[in-house]
Amino acid sequence: MASAALKDELDIVIPTIRNLDFLEMWRPFFEQYHLIIVQDGDPSKTIKVPDGFDYELYNRNDINKILGPRSSCISFKDSACRCFGYMVSKKKYIYTIDDDCFVAKDPSGKDINALEQHIKNLLCPSTPNFFNTLYDPFREGADYVRGYPFSLREGVPTAVSHGLWLNIPDYDAPTQLVKPLERNTRYVDMVLTIPKGTLFPMCGMNLAFDRELIGPAMYFGLMGDGQPIGRYDDMWAGWCCKVICDHLGLGIKTGLPYIYHSKASNPFVNLKKEYLGIFWQEEIIPFFQSHNFSKDCTTVQKCYVELSKQVKEKLGKVDPYFLKLADAMVTWIEAWDMLNPPNKDSANDSSK
Amino acid sequence: MASAALKDELDIVIPTIRNLDFLEMWRPFFEQYHLIIVQDGDPSKTIKVPDGFDYELYNRNDINKILGPRSSCISFKDSACRCFGYMVSKKKYIYTIDDDCFVAKDPSGKDINALEQHIKNLLCPSTPNFFNTLYDPFREGADYVRGYPFSLREGVPTAVSHGLWLNIPDYDAPTQLVKPLERNTRYVDMVLTIPKGTLFPMCGMNLAFDRELIGPAMYFGLMGDGQPIGRYDDMWAGWCCKVICDHLGLGIKTGLPYIYHSKASNPFVNLKKEYLGIFWQEEIIPFFQSHNFSKDCTTVQKCYVELSKQVKEKLGKVDPYFLKLADAMVTWIEAWDMLNPPNKDSANDSSK
Repeated sequence: MASAALKDELDIVIPTIRNLDFLEMWRPFFEQYHLIIVQDGDPSKTIKVPDGFDYELYNRNDINKILGPRSSCISFKDSACRCFGYMVSKKKYIYTIDDDCFVAKDPSGKDINALEQHIKNLLCPSTPNFFNTLYDPFREGADYVRGYPFSLREGVPTAVSHGLWLNIPDYDAPTQLVKPLERNTRYVDMVLTIPKGTLFPMCGMNLAFDRELIGPAMYFGLMGDGQPIGRYDDMWAGWCCKVICDHLGLGIKTGLPYIYHSKASNPFVNLKKEYLGIFWQEEIIPFFQSHNFSKDCTTVQKCYVELSKQVKEKLGKVDPYFLKLADAMVTWIEAWDMLNPPNKDSANDSSK
Repeated sequence: MASAALKDELDIVIPTIRNLDFLEMWRPFFEQYHLIIVQDGDPSKTIKVPDGFDYELYNRNDINKILGPRSSCISFKDSACRCFGYMVSKKKYIYTIDDDCFVAKDPSGKDINALEQHIKNLLCPSTPNFFNTLYDPFREGADYVRGYPFSLREGVPTAVSHGLWLNIPDYDAPTQLVKPLERNTRYVDMVLTIPKGTLFPMCGMNLAFDRELIGPAMYFGLMGDGQPIGRYDDMWAGWCCKVICDHLGLGIKTGLPYIYHSKASNPFVNLKKEYLGIFWQEEIIPFFQSHNFSKDCTTVQKCYVELSKQVKEKLGKVDPYFLKLADAMVTWIEAWDMLNPPNKDSANDSSK
């Protein structure tokens, strides 16, 4: 029901498809939607998309042509390039998924329609200002419990729906190395709002969001080719989105739906990519935890540009990489506004 | 395993037993523990405890005799009187449960040993400073996910374990009236830490805590006979405990274990008890959300006494009831320290 209603309002963004089974497996759930595939590597290689899918495909040459010099903000040879797809989409909602994520089964053995659950999550309010012990009060069979203030029961609009993974958990390289055999087999039948003021590690494997509410903050940074770091693209986006959602009165949900994450990436390669991030995040987290926006930050764009200035000022000392990233954050907003002219997109103003 | 280890370190506190089946049903799980029963009504009535249980029973006359004039801080004819049991216990851990809560079954049909799960929750650390998307990272088969700062992975000591309820959910009177048939049938296989800075509605039906870490803040206030309000005893304790735990670097977990809540209390009676609380909580919540402790608050007692002053100053304007409650909070601490002399109890100092 919910998913049918959103047929023309949602794009699926995939950062390359190496695995041909991937789309076949998702066909019953994805075929009705438009796909945006952003090829992360060599543009001379061809990605084969099975018949019956409605899609557009962008490689590096396309990105360069569309964005011109501003294409510098889009990562190359890294799945972080997917955020270009968020920018060229004209839809209200985005669902992004990795090509090693397959359809999971619920405890009754039924295939999980991940997209349908994400849409449910996005269409009903979030409750970031007070914790509800029965979790999402908008779910059928649940409600606010005794002691939940009535003035907060309207909730706030949901900007992000963060889904989880059965089988291979999203571990960092050190944990992968220490626990090579660990699998996530526990299906937790629950969605909750991440409380205001609390940061979380946002994974881009199985993620949906409302472009109009939070799109300009969903920048996946500078990763991969030519950059000192990888595997922090979604984390960076998550930290930025969370502080901006908290400031603008928007919600982020996590929990259902699950996808089946089929294979662990190589922990040695991952360690090389993550190495600097493991140190840097010890300074990045306190930076975000103590961040406050000024009162003029009434749109996502304004928040994001202000955040970029703070990144330059406060994280620039950690490593020159953050000076480059701060500039790229501004370029990203310029590119976003170029492709999504602000006057046509007044819904971006989430101030109340 | 865990539960056997705590045989001599945990008391079960029950605020009266009207239902004789109650203890029989819990016998396999409770018989090895010491029970403290605090009779909430007429002291001339006798509570019958089945053979084989090791227990002590306190009625109003006992409370008056033990606390003298300080007994004024203990509610009468209300289950809030249970907190007297927290005070007279000499054990490290307390589990408190209502007499209409029975043994629940997990999805496989097996009886849930609620106490064992509470002990697991209390014995492993909490993670209030950052949200882990796979929930409790200390649970078998789970860990911290990618992007969780390594410096925060030690966690903090767990002070409170808040369990949930299948069947009758813990709804307020208005929700009971609107949804008389709603039942909680969803077993969510999960424990999580309530993030720092976030308040929650703590229910006293199925609750365990570490007396040494947080006992003096577990005061259930002035409810019932002679008071203008009821059904906010556990809520009040939860709000006080949460801000004190946040200040002292302690954790509160919620989720598993479930008990089976057998019968809904009368919503009309509840509405009468809750009526004023529904208004007052709209001012109480902002009070707690904006509360900050001074630096000298290095013990639970010091926090609690400082909190009582703020209650008097800031909530006294809402209703004279809060002036009386603030005084009772101080009396409670005096009574606590009388029964638990501070010098013998140095573990109370949770400052770091």
